[in-house]
Amino acid sequence: MSESNSVLVGKKPVMNYVLACITLFHGGAKEVSVKARGRAISRAVDVVEVVRRRFLPDVKIKQVGIGTEQVAPTEEGGTPTNVSTIEITLER
Amino acid sequence: MSESNSVLVGKKPVMNYVLACITLFHGGAKEVSVKARGRAISRAVDVVEVVRRRFLPDVKIKQVGIGTEQVAPTEEGGTPTNVSTIEITLER
Repeated sequence: MSESNSVLVGKKPVMNYVLACITLFHGGAKEVSVKARGRAISRAVDVVEVVRRRFLPDVKIKQVGIGTEQVAPTEEGGTPTNVSTIEITLER
Repeated sequence: MSESNSVLVGKKPVMNYVLACITLFHGGAKEVSVKARGRAISRAVDVVEVVRRRFLPDVKIKQVGIGTEQVAPTEEGGTPTNVSTIEITLER
């Protein structure tokens, strides 16, 4: 999958990411991948649902992948922690 | 899908739900469905990742579905709100 058509969901309002997805689709993208880690995962699902139900009803969910990433410790001698990830691939 | 083999993830610690999944699989379940709404969605992904990576490596993710549910207004005359949902089906 092309990495350029991806939206990384963080702590900003849902509508920011919704707009990013719509802009990519309007720019001719056939697939957009919505990614998030940790607590932003629920927001990523919100983004996808708003895109599909309110703005682009012809967009379908192609695939949903979940996984784990290791995050380096923030302080010297700390242990690395695991964080869950999600990647939702949309296509129209 | 049988509704009996499902774990509804809420606000309790992740390990509570992990244990519920493991108990179902040890009781002979071939499929367990992990469900969550709203902010608990990220916790549901955590539950699945802990089950798969730490306890039951033979468990695979069969399907991930996301959707929207309408929640009735809490006060008279309020408008119903939408909440995102996730359902992760595990199989061994």
